[in-house]
Amino acid sequence: MALIVQKYGGSSVADAESIKRVAKRIVDTRRAGHEVVVAVSAMGDTTDELLDLAAEVAPIPAPRELDMLLSSGERISMALLAMAIHSMGFEARSFTGSQAGMITDATHGAARIVDVTPIRLREALDEGAIVIVAGFQGFNRDTRDITTLGRGGSDTTAVALAAALDADVCEIYSDVDGIFTADPRVVPRAKKLGVVSAEEMLELAANGAKVLYIRAVEYARRHGVLIHARSTFSSAVGTFVLGDGMTLPDELSDGQEGEQMEEPIVAGVATDLSQAKITIIGVPDVPGKAAEIFKIIAKSGANVDMIVQNVSAAATGRTDISFTLPKADAATALKALAGEQTAVGFESLVHDDQIGKLSVVGAGMRTHSGVSATLFEALSVAGINIEMISTSEIRISVVVRGDDLAEAARVVHRAYGLDGDVEAVVHAGTGR
Amino acid sequence: MALIVQKYGGSSVADAESIKRVAKRIVDTRRAGHEVVVAVSAMGDTTDELLDLAAEVAPIPAPRELDMLLSSGERISMALLAMAIHSMGFEARSFTGSQAGMITDATHGAARIVDVTPIRLREALDEGAIVIVAGFQGFNRDTRDITTLGRGGSDTTAVALAAALDADVCEIYSDVDGIFTADPRVVPRAKKLGVVSAEEMLELAANGAKVLYIRAVEYARRHGVLIHARSTFSSAVGTFVLGDGMTLPDELSDGQEGEQMEEPIVAGVATDLSQAKITIIGVPDVPGKAAEIFKIIAKSGANVDMIVQNVSAAATGRTDISFTLPKADAATALKALAGEQTAVGFESLVHDDQIGKLSVVGAGMRTHSGVSATLFEALSVAGINIEMISTSEIRISVVVRGDDLAEAARVVHRAYGLDGDVEAVVHAGTGR
Repeated sequence: MALIVQKYGGSSVADAESIKRVAKRIVDTRRAGHEVVVAVSAMGDTTDELLDLAAEVAPIPAPRELDMLLSSGERISMALLAMAIHSMGFEARSFTGSQAGMITDATHGAARIVDVTPIRLREALDEGAIVIVAGFQGFNRDTRDITTLGRGGSDTTAVALAAALDADVCEIYSDVDGIFTADPRVVPRAKKLGVVSAEEMLELAANGAKVLYIRAVEYARRHGVLIHARSTFSSAVGTFVLGDGMTLPDELSDGQEGEQMEEPIVAGVATDLSQAKITIIGVPDVPGKAAEIFKIIAKSGANVDMIVQNVSAAATGRTDISFTLPKADAATALKALAGEQTAVGFESLVHDDQIGKLSVVGAGMRTHSGVSATLFEALSVAGINIEMISTSEIRISVVVRGDDLAEAARVVHRAYGLDGDVEAVVHAGTGR
Repeated sequence: MALIVQKYGGSSVADAESIKRVAKRIVDTRRAGHEVVVAVSAMGDTTDELLDLAAEVAPIPAPRELDMLLSSGERISMALLAMAIHSMGFEARSFTGSQAGMITDATHGAARIVDVTPIRLREALDEGAIVIVAGFQGFNRDTRDITTLGRGGSDTTAVALAAALDADVCEIYSDVDGIFTADPRVVPRAKKLGVVSAEEMLELAANGAKVLYIRAVEYARRHGVLIHARSTFSSAVGTFVLGDGMTLPDELSDGQEGEQMEEPIVAGVATDLSQAKITIIGVPDVPGKAAEIFKIIAKSGANVDMIVQNVSAAATGRTDISFTLPKADAATALKALAGEQTAVGFESLVHDDQIGKLSVVGAGMRTHSGVSATLFEALSVAGINIEMISTSEIRISVVVRGDDLAEAARVVHRAYGLDGDVEAVVHAGTGR
């Protein structure tokens, strides 16, 4: 008997039929003899609908009240799910974030978990019940108010419960089969990974892969939680995310031998079309200028990703600095920079929102040389121009034209020997 | 400065516009220098929609989960209302039933209030905030589970908060202007009452008047809470419901002098088309038969109202017994009686669902004779036949043909001198 935590997102519980399908899946796990704890998101578009209502009554909704409002979404889905399970003849009990002991700080809308005290969940499990917990929400002890965890909150709820209850595995269900070597909609020959390391998963997620949230993976890594990313619509094994020093338990490793025996150098290729590039032309090449510029951008609230500074032209004593950032942040950053043009002394700004970022991620890069050469060679043969490059210990990212990104991903995927024999089946939806 | 509790029903907060209108009304009360606590129902048809969803996932939803589900409705409306007030520049805080200290027994779906500990509400008031509380819901200390109060729950929440906080008045808002001498849709010359005693209100509500729930009025009477039933859509003074020995405070009695100076013998006329009549023909006229019959009916769960037993026919030693009950209970009661026909020894059953009940209510009946004579005379002149009669200390009820009920109400209303000079304005809706 294992203790299994499962997380179902909004698209998995979008209507009564979906809820009954998920209930059956949960009951099957219980029937197999396991203890089951489920973290569930609000139904389908409920959260967006509640946000729309809030915007109608208040231009800037009070954060405490917005959390009170949004937290009602999971109460609805969790109660319905518990009822559905109950009517299949199994004992099920739903718990709010507060009842589940999900203690957070007081930051409404983006609360951090500070403690998890799942006393009532453990009691319910001991009494043989299936436990359903509202994802995304918590409770602050000082203010005694309800909080929400922000984006990806339900994934984090699931992982935090798995850690606190010492669960054997935390299954994150979505509408895709697991983690792929690339986005199958971009690279049809992408293969599902049997396992991926948490550090690779973090780099993939940070660079465009959408299946798991960074925050949940980080939490899992820090607390030694085994994540299993899999599909609500199939019973196939998905992808296990292994923390540092973690190995896959024998009973879970069926059909994973290939991947276990030889770690590939490159785990996957991530693509990202959500960034824009800003180039600051003619920056005086004197010490402290870069710090000055990025302080201005940081103050504007923009989140800078890659930064490249060209070699200074000797004749002018000036240089160009390019950086990438989320498209949504570009206008704010441009405005902030333009306002300080005289103070900084740069010549002009160029905004380019037609870029694409390709990242190759693999823990094997640490011990293998020539990984970047393969990337550059593949892009060169395909006639694709590289505009920016940045690297981490286990990742190489390049910026190319947005129009070239899909082709770049396909040739690079092939060059690293990642292509599968068949095309992957692509489901609708985004995997949220 | 007074402490005012206000209750707004679902139709008063049905959409964003309504919520903003109610928010303005609350802010106006705060601006006038009063402390304000608001009990709010779920938006419009939310509760019914949630019940439909529950029915889709489970034929018989688990009661604990149904309460968890339904309680989310008020969380939505209260958070939106608090936001709307907040955006008007006033501090507002919403509280769930549990946060508000609404302690109940563990009867899911129809919980009784056992204690009210509004510690957080008092704190919020002391900090100058407007307090918004989820109506209809509570919390059981033993199971630590969320409960709901059942029909009329939000009215009861408001009155219980008013009692616990020692409020000056509990304003129950609906889409009608107050309590009328009769239903204005039936008796166009009905007048709004300035004041009505709680005991009269209880009789009126129990006999068809829909504006206030019996349970809330009972709670108010027991705890000395002054209820003010008034309209969300007008600023006019409504009707004050006075408990035993209570008098209207001077500052609230503007324009009520007429009603205060001379208590009318009859406060109002209530009409009810929701009952059916069952007659049991040929019951052996021996001691214990009535007990036997009404034990059978009670066991079936039917709620008997009026009972009439005819004089026994000497020749046969048999009698007929008629009683009224809610139409919805009739089928069950008939089935239960038919199953015991041989044991009881009656001859046959007659079911009549075309009846109407007219009730005349007034505390003055205690000290005035001739009240019933006026009623019978008025009906006789109008040619309306009386089928059953029952009386309490302050009420006379008669059963007539359903088709005659409206005409009966009009002639009786006139006979007691209750007709106003002008026709009442009738709003849409039911006053829920």
